[in-house]
This record gives sequence, structure tokens and C-alpha cells, in this order.
Amino acid sequence: MYKVTFQFENGDDVTAFAAPGENLLEVARKTNVAIDAPCSGNAACGKCRVKLAGGELDSAKTRHITEEEYAQGWRLSCVSKVVADVEILVPDIASAYRSRMKVADLGSAEELQIFEKTKADIADAGIAFKNDLEVVSVVMEEPSLDNTMPDNERLVWAVEDACGVSSVKLPFAVLQKLAEVLRKSAFRVQLVIRRADDLAEVLDILSADEKAQVCGLAVDIGTTTVSALIIDMTDGAILAKASAGNGQIRYGADVINRIIEQQKDGGRKKLQDAIISETLNPLIDAMCGASGVSPQHIYRMCVAGNTTMNHLFAGVDADPVRMEPFIPTFFETDSLYAQDLGLHIYPHARIIMAPNIGSYVGGDITAGTLASTIWNSEEMSLFIDLGTNGELVFGNSEFMMSCACSAGPAFEGGDISCGMRATDGAIEACTIDKETMEPTLTIVGDEGQKPIGICGSGIIDIISELFRCGIISPKGKFIREGERIRHDKYGMGSYVIAFKKDAASVKDIELTEVDIDNFIRAKGAIFSAIRVMLGSLDFDVSMIERVLVAGGIGSGINMKNAVSIGMFPDIELEKFTYIGNSSLSGAYAMLYSSEAEAKVADVAHNMTYLELSNEPSYMDEFVASCFLPHTDATLFPSLEMK
Amino acid sequence: MYKVTFQFENGDDVTAFAAPGENLLEVARKTNVAIDAPCSGNAACGKCRVKLAGGELDSAKTRHITEEEYAQGWRLSCVSKVVADVEILVPDIASAYRSRMKVADLGSAEELQIFEKTKADIADAGIAFKNDLEVVSVVMEEPSLDNTMPDNERLVWAVEDACGVSSVKLPFAVLQKLAEVLRKSAFRVQLVIRRADDLAEVLDILSADEKAQVCGLAVDIGTTTVSALIIDMTDGAILAKASAGNGQIRYGADVINRIIEQQKDGGRKKLQDAIISETLNPLIDAMCGASGVSPQHIYRMCVAGNTTMNHLFAGVDADPVRMEPFIPTFFETDSLYAQDLGLHIYPHARIIMAPNIGSYVGGDITAGTLASTIWNSEEMSLFIDLGTNGELVFGNSEFMMSCACSAGPAFEGGDISCGMRATDGAIEACTIDKETMEPTLTIVGDEGQKPIGICGSGIIDIISELFRCGIISPKGKFIREGERIRHDKYGMGSYVIAFKKDAASVKDIELTEVDIDNFIRAKGAIFSAIRVMLGSLDFDVSMIERVLVAGGIGSGINMKNAVSIGMFPDIELEKFTYIGNSSLSGAYAMLYSSEAEAKVADVAHNMTYLELSNEPSYMDEFVASCFLPHTDATLFPSLEMK
Repeated sequence: MYKVTFQFENGDDVTAFAAPGENLLEVARKTNVAIDAPCSGNAACGKCRVKLAGGELDSAKTRHITEEEYAQGWRLSCVSKVVADVEILVPDIASAYRSRMKVADLGSAEELQIFEKTKADIADAGIAFKNDLEVVSVVMEEPSLDNTMPDNERLVWAVEDACGVSSVKLPFAVLQKLAEVLRKSAFRVQLVIRRADDLAEVLDILSADEKAQVCGLAVDIGTTTVSALIIDMTDGAILAKASAGNGQIRYGADVINRIIEQQKDGGRKKLQDAIISETLNPLIDAMCGASGVSPQHIYRMCVAGNTTMNHLFAGVDADPVRMEPFIPTFFETDSLYAQDLGLHIYPHARIIMAPNIGSYVGGDITAGTLASTIWNSEEMSLFIDLGTNGELVFGNSEFMMSCACSAGPAFEGGDISCGMRATDGAIEACTIDKETMEPTLTIVGDEGQKPIGICGSGIIDIISELFRCGIISPKGKFIREGERIRHDKYGMGSYVIAFKKDAASVKDIELTEVDIDNFIRAKGAIFSAIRVMLGSLDFDVSMIERVLVAGGIGSGINMKNAVSIGMFPDIELEKFTYIGNSSLSGAYAMLYSSEAEAKVADVAHNMTYLELSNEPSYMDEFVASCFLPHTDATLFPSLEMK
Repeated sequence: MYKVTFQFENGDDVTAFAAPGENLLEVARKTNVAIDAPCSGNAACGKCRVKLAGGELDSAKTRHITEEEYAQGWRLSCVSKVVADVEILVPDIASAYRSRMKVADLGSAEELQIFEKTKADIADAGIAFKNDLEVVSVVMEEPSLDNTMPDNERLVWAVEDACGVSSVKLPFAVLQKLAEVLRKSAFRVQLVIRRADDLAEVLDILSADEKAQVCGLAVDIGTTTVSALIIDMTDGAILAKASAGNGQIRYGADVINRIIEQQKDGGRKKLQDAIISETLNPLIDAMCGASGVSPQHIYRMCVAGNTTMNHLFAGVDADPVRMEPFIPTFFETDSLYAQDLGLHIYPHARIIMAPNIGSYVGGDITAGTLASTIWNSEEMSLFIDLGTNGELVFGNSEFMMSCACSAGPAFEGGDISCGMRATDGAIEACTIDKETMEPTLTIVGDEGQKPIGICGSGIIDIISELFRCGIISPKGKFIREGERIRHDKYGMGSYVIAFKKDAASVKDIELTEVDIDNFIRAKGAIFSAIRVMLGSLDFDVSMIERVLVAGGIGSGINMKNAVSIGMFPDIELEKFTYIGNSSLSGAYAMLYSSEAEAKVADVAHNMTYLELSNEPSYMDEFVASCFLPHTDATLFPSLEMK
């Protein structure tokens, strides 16, 4: 075995051991060192580059590494074999993906306000916030030589009596602790009960003096980012919040590469472990630690994710999702319990999944549509979820149509060299002085917080401002010179937003032409999807009465700038509202409210799905949209007039 | 760590490693070296004696080891600490317990005949041999861009149609393999279905060309011996049979010591592992290997065992079973699935347990009572199950009363120095010439099989013959001299049944006074229980119209000899029948037939339970019965007349 040391620019070190000849990217994956590999290790994308800092690698040469770079030690990890002890420098463009778990990072006042507003909107739409869980106290006669009923029958009788039901179910987990709890508390116990019609299922049994806590877990499984809430199921109070990078990222940036990866031997297990053991369980443990909730008191879970994420989460083959005729194993399922998946919560907790409606419109969108409440209004509304898969729903209380496009992780700061999620230290807004080209930044966090990176809303502002100031061309190339403008030896330009001395970062925070290009493709995917979907209905953007924007892009999103770079259609700015992480808000509602759970199923059944890849015009629209703001300037009349 | 080598008289060696100061009995248990410890390591019984063959032990002296024995190297393992590398000789009296797994050892023609007879009796009593499992073939339309129903909905529709049910359940295990199987076989599949009223549960899905095999597993979990069958659920054919020692034996010979052991830290897990991981899973693997059945095709399991065995099997606290008021967690339960217990069969297989009716009358008796068919006859019948717990049922189609007594493992060859189960090489019958004192033996197995040890029926014959020939006294002490009679230096007598040269054994096969004493106490427990139970009903033995004897004692049982040693009441010999392992036959019936399953519940509900320990006369009756044949000779008039 050889020793492999992964070094990070922030000074962190991770050590692993590899067999002679083992693939370096595989070693990194096994060690949970997240090296960006959007193509999943097929030497196609050139993103998994690392730098040899000591020792030796047996690496094939590829078109992605120049001779000069090769001489400097740059290698593609997917074509490198370990042949000796070796030290590897993992560059920041990759380490930006390292899972940054943050407990309570949805705690910003604005985010919380947006969340509470969504809850209120759902309640206003007539959804009662009530669920099927309750705590029931029962007192049984103690057994004696004259009263010899066994414990389980004694409990069933007591539950039938207390709940007025004729059928009671005791799962194995309760059977196993029954004798001990009953005797410890002299046959006075508290029960966590799940009711369904005439049936009461005893989920848990606690002694009379234990604190009965009935909690729930809502999770938004995004392709790039996973966000979660633990709530009190009795009053809906949020007890903990957290988010983290999706651990599957090292198996590909988008769903297609992950599906390809899960097709390999043992791949399903690897992808499932990456989301469950490496992402969700640590997230649950951290939230429980922060809030004092016992994981064993989480009795219900709701998951919202796209169709692929749902299948990989359940350990179910996702390959049919990407292969014509695109038929997944399930849209909806009630077969899942926590113990089946190895989740660190109550083993018999039921897992509710927001239903998918197609291979590329999943539970994140049905849950998000619930949260958007567009189904409750006569106004023609456009709901846009800016995730790695960008998803759109257009409609009102009469009809709804949805579609999805692959935008990549740029909106969440992925695929951007200094990108990050909208947490403390993120540049969330920016203006640039046209004369001096000096930026003025707004940073997420407390007064005095120094910038660490750029979140989605910040990138929109910077690109919009660079374009407005004539610093970049409509194609995103630098066309002015200055202290903050740099070109590397290959000619790639970049703009320094914050010099290292002013930043809480190990290097200058900059936006490169590659970053800008990635973002332009992301925004182009969204805009072209809007055009094609409305076109398929013979609608025009002028008919849109409101636009609800969701996603991890950040509450700082400047709609005017988003329009001016051609991401959103050029309509009145008052029509735009940012509604935060609607997938998580929807999952929250489904978790806490059985009526919301039913409503989402209803929404899913009534939604039409448009498969963009079947629309002949989509590719042309996309290409035309990869421009600032668009190749057809007439689509942006308000910009023309300026 | 020190090296501990356990040596056996047959030349086997087992090596283990122990921490300095570690208890030797614990080391043996961890290593699966079964040293007999009926008192479970409390230095009370003196049975865990081993001999130091090399190295050193730090052992307390006890009353169980004389000074001379101590000097010879004899030690009690439960009071010995490992303080150096050490070699330990495990004497045969202990190694007799070593788990002797035997696949197909119920295969003797007599045993099989008895088993088939029992099946026929149950069928004659009107029980239909049918169950809720079936294989259904379905053909679905293949999905297309115009038919985009997801796999699970497609399957549910097909099942509703094929089975005429309105509700279909797909467990997680099926969801996980759905996509692959459907596509591999072009949407033509076979389903293993469990039906209940209007519900069809899809237990498994197989491609059209796979061989669908629907098997079941019946297990009799005895305190000393575990027996099992794998059957074809479609026609009831027996595909494999096996038995093995219960791996829990090293935690105590009887249920009380095992309950005490499971009360210790981690004890429940240890006892459950001993029965599941160490006994049942190897037994299942061996049977599947022998018969070519895939463990994944075992979709239903039925377990018959006493109340303690059932609780330890389920990993449920058994302590309340032994503590007044003797209330177990369950008599019946439908909460158990194979995956909960880590059994090597289909994870979602339901586990049916023959119901317990009291702390000391369990599922082995309710299942056995089903097999005895005494509930189907007007004749007053006595059903006797000769196990480690001896259990009795008396009654007819009008009423039934049951009771249990602790007989110890002697009937199965346990607690007997040369004892063994009724498998190949067991001496199952014996006569002794009064003059020469030479024995004539009947050995289980093929022509020419040499004796290995003595099974229960053989012990009855030998004791009866020794008594008839005046070789032993009514107290079981040797009172004649001869070549085959020996006395060791402490004066303990023994009778050599087969000299080493004539045996397939590493030493002479003999019966010692300690063996005889153990057996007399076992038979005394049975006889006194019969007396007390009949007495409580104001019945007399003369009113018994038939006696059905069950248990692992062997089909060779000589009823006349059993009467002559005072084990069974002195009534006409034609009234006695040996019905084999009724617990396993009952479990078989319940496994294969849903009606039998219901019938056992019915039998259990209608059976009265007599707690012998609450009967003041029981102890006196027991003491009076520990004599050949009994202290009150008038109870055995037929013997008097000889």
C-alpha cells in the first residue's frame, strides 16, 4: 500500500492508502476527498486536475493538460495511477465542492421571513397544519397471578380503549422494548401513535417520566446542495436547520453522470451511501446535537428531490430515468421506512416522498409548487426553481405545465472557481463603478464579515455590472484593462472582486471567463426553457402575471440584474418575488400537514409535463440565449431604451 | 493476549486468544467452545470442569474439585483466569454438547413414517393443507413515450387485474429490484404473492425464465436441540431436514440459567446471536446447500419453541417469564419479519410463531398439541413432550389442560456422559443378560454401524435392564460386580455398554451413577407432573385412554421399559404411541397450512394452564418419584406381579 496525502490550499491534509496501480480519483472518492469530476472520471471534462506536490504518479497525458502544465506537475486524477507514496495538491476549484456542512445556515432573518411567508401562504390557501402523529398517555392495570395477560395484549387493549380504534399495530421495535418500559414505569406509559382511520400504530413507547418528543425531518435533496429541517410535529416549530453539499458530487456534477456511475458494479450502493451515510446522517447528527433532539424521536420524514435523487436515495436503479422512454421505478411510493435505508432516525419512521411527475420533474418541483401556491390563484404565474436542474411550472388554479432543463450547479456557486452557497461570507450583491471599475460588495453575515466567495445572486450582479460597465463583451470576454483585470498566460481573463488582503480566503476572489461562460450557459438554459414552454402554449411573456423564483441562489437576488443579463424575461420588476428554497418549504408543509401531503399528490396528478428534449426549437433557443442578454436584443426592450 | 488452546478427546483443537485475567469460561463461549455450564458460570453446579494440559491458570479452589483432582490439573473454568499461554483439555462430558449439526438426520425411515402419519392425522381432522402464498405470472404492456406509467404503478395495475384484488402492497425489497427484473424479462414476470382478503402483497418478483420456488422453513427451537425443515410451499414436499444443538447451551442448560444470562449487559444480544447467527443461519445454509434451495426463496417461516426460546429468538426480554407474576411480552405476535432478526432467508418473510399460553407452556406445546390431534378425539388422551422442559397436555375434544416441568436435557442425551441425540451411532435399544451381564445393542444407522453414544431411548432400556438384572439398586447404585462394572477411586460406579474396541468412540461407552441419577430425576419430574395434573382434575391414571409420547428421545423408545423404571404410569402398553418430534410436525403444519395456523391459535385459547410450582403436592411427588420405579410400589402393580 502507498500513502497518498491530499493537501488543500487552506492547509488541511487528508491521508489515504492506496494499492499499487489504484486510480487516484477512486482513492479520493473512497477517502471522501471531493475532487470535482462532472464527467464522473471518463477523462472527458478535464475538471479533476490536481498538482503533484511530491512523490510520483503514473498519469496518461490528455488534451486537458498542456505540456507546460504537465511539467509543472498538473495531472488529471481520473487517468492517474498511484505507483509510490505521493502528495497531491487539490486546487481550490475542486475543493470548493468539499462538503461544507452548516447547521442553522438558513437562520438569516431574511431567509426565515421568506420561509414563514410561504407557510402563511399555504395556510391561507386552506391547508390545515395537522398530521397523523400524537402522544397518548395510557395507564394499564399491573399484571398479577390473577391477571396474566401478556404485555402486548395488555397494551393493545389499552390503546383500543384510549384511541377508540378497533385495530392496533405494534411494530417489532416496540415489541422489543415493551417489557422493560412497562415495568420501569409501573404500566403507566406514553405512546407515540400514528393513526389511520380505525387503526392505531404504536410507533414508540416511553415511560411516564420520559420527555416525549415527536419530531419530524424535512429534507430537500438537491443535486448539488442538501438542506434539512427538524421540526416539532406537535406545533410545527423549527428546532434545527442545516445544509451541506450533496456527497454524490464526486460522482458527477449532474444527474446524468451520477446515473452512469450507479450503473457500474456496486454503483447503486456507492451513490446511496454518498447521500445517506455521508451526507444525511452527519447532517441529522449535527442538527440533533445542536438542538438536543434525539434522532430516535424523529418519527416521520419527508423528502423532496428530483426523480434521480429520489431513486438514488432509495437505492433503486435510476438508469431508466435517462433511457428512452424515460420510465422511472416510481413517481410515488409508500414502501419506504427509515430502517430500509439505514437513516439515523427512528427505524420505523415512514418516509414520505414528494411525488415525481416525470423523469426530469421530480418531488422538488411538486413540493415547490405546493409552496408557490400558484395552484391557488387565477393569476398566470411562472414558478422557477433555480437548481442544478432548473425547473419551471407555469399556470394557475385552472392548469399547470412543467418542464426541466439542465442548468448545472452555477446558481448554487458550483462550477464557479470562487463560488459558494449563500452562507456567511458569500458576496451576495455587488455594484461596480463604471469609471474606476472598483466594486462595492454586500456580504452575507454579521457586520465586518469579510468575503469568502460568491453565491449565485452575487454572480448575477457581478456579470450584470461587468457587462453594464463595458468590462466584458456580450460573449463574456474581458474587453477593458485595469488593476483588477488579469489575463493568465493562456489569455484567460478574470476580474478580481476582492484581493486576498481584504478577504477571508486563501487567495484573491475573482470571476474568470470560464466562470462567466458557465453562468451564461446556466442562465441561457433557464431563459430558453421559459421561451419554449410558453411558446408551446401559444403564450407570450407579456401574459405572465407574476414570477416566483426559488432556489439556493440567495435572498439577495437582484431581479433587475437577472433580467439585464437575459436570465429572466423582460417584464415589470414588481412581478418578481423570491420565495427561497421552495422545495424545502414544500417538504416542511408535507411533513407537518397530512392535508399538504394530499395536496401535493393532487398537484402532481394535475400537472402536465413538457419534455424539452422532444421540442425541436429548444436547442436553437438555448444557443441564442448564451449571450448577454440575448442574440435577439428585441426580447429585452427595456434594456434597449436605456 | 495469551493463546488458549482447547483440546478435545477426539483430537480436535480450537485456538483462541484471551486478555490477561480473562475468565476461561467466557473465552470458551466467545470461541464457540461449548463447555457445559448449566448454572451459567456461577460456580454452583461444578460441571464446567476442564483439565490443564499445559501452561498455567489462576483458578480459585472450589468444593467441586478435590485436592487430588486439583493436583491432577482439574479446574472449574468459570473460576479460572487466563494468566499465560495455556492448553486446556475439554472432557467428553462437556464436548458431548458440542453442536453436532446433521443435515437430514430425521431421514430415518421410521422417523419419516411417524412424521407422515402425523400429517395424515392432521389432515384427517379436517385441516386443509393450503396457505396464502402463490406464484402469479403477469404480462404488462411495455412502456413507451405514449405509455409513461412508472414501473410500480404498472405492476400494481397488473396485480389488481391478475388477482382480482383492489389493494396491492409492494414492499421495499421488491421496489429495489423492480426496474431491473421488468426490463430483463420484457415486462413478463412471475410474482410471489401473499394474499389476505382483498389485499395482495407482492413478496418477490422474478423474471419469466427464472425458476420460481416458493419455500418455507419450519423450526422447532428446543432448549437443547433445534430441528428444522425446508418445504415446498406449493405441495408441502420436504426438501431438506436438519438438526443441531442449540448454540445457547453454553449459557446454561435450562431456560432459567439462560434468562439470568440474558439479563446481563449485552446478554439479550448474545443469546439471540447464539440461536440466530450460530445455530439457525448455519442450519439454513446447510439445508439450502444440500437441497439446492436459495435462502432468498424462503418466504414464510414457522417457529415452535417454548416461551423463553421464543422471546430469546425475538431478542425480547425474557426476564418477566421467570419472575412472579410470570408475564411474558407476548403469547402471540405478528410483528416479526426475517429482516428484523437477521435470519438468512427472504428479508420480508413473515415469521409465524406457534402461540405460547403461559410462561412455561409455549409454542412447542401448542404446535405439538395440534400434531397430537387430541383436540379431535373423545378419548381422554395424555400428550407428553419429553424435552428439556417436559410438557404435558391432558384432555380431549371437550377440554385440555397443560403443565410443564423442568426435566433437564437427559431425554436428548444431554447431562449424560456418553449421551447423544438419536442419530447414526446412537444406542437406541438394549437388553442385558441377567447371568453374564452382557448387553445386546440396537444401533441407529446402517448395518455394521458401531456405537458412538447413547440416545434417550437407549438410556431407558439400559437403566431398566440394569434394574431388572439386579445390577443397580432402586436408588440407581451399582450392587453387583463384574467385568463391565467399574468403580473409580471415589467409589462412583459405572457400567460399560461398549468397550472402546467395539465402538466408534474415543473411549469406552459407559453409563455412570451420575448419569443414572440425572436420568432418574428427569423421569421423576415427568411422572410426578402426570400425577399432580391428573390429581388436580380428580382423575386417576386408569382413566387415560391413550398416551402420545413426543420428543427427541428416539423412535426406538420401549414403552414397557419406560413404565418399568417409573417414567410413565403403569397402564396397558397398547395405549402408548410415539409420535416423534410433534413440535416440528406442528410447525410444519402451521407453515404449510393457514387453517392449521388458525387451529393452533384456537387450541391455545382453549387450553387451561396449570402452574405446577403453585401446587403444594408437586415437590413431595417429585421426591417420591426419584426412585426405581417409585417409592410407592403400589403405583406399579404390573411390576409387582412379575
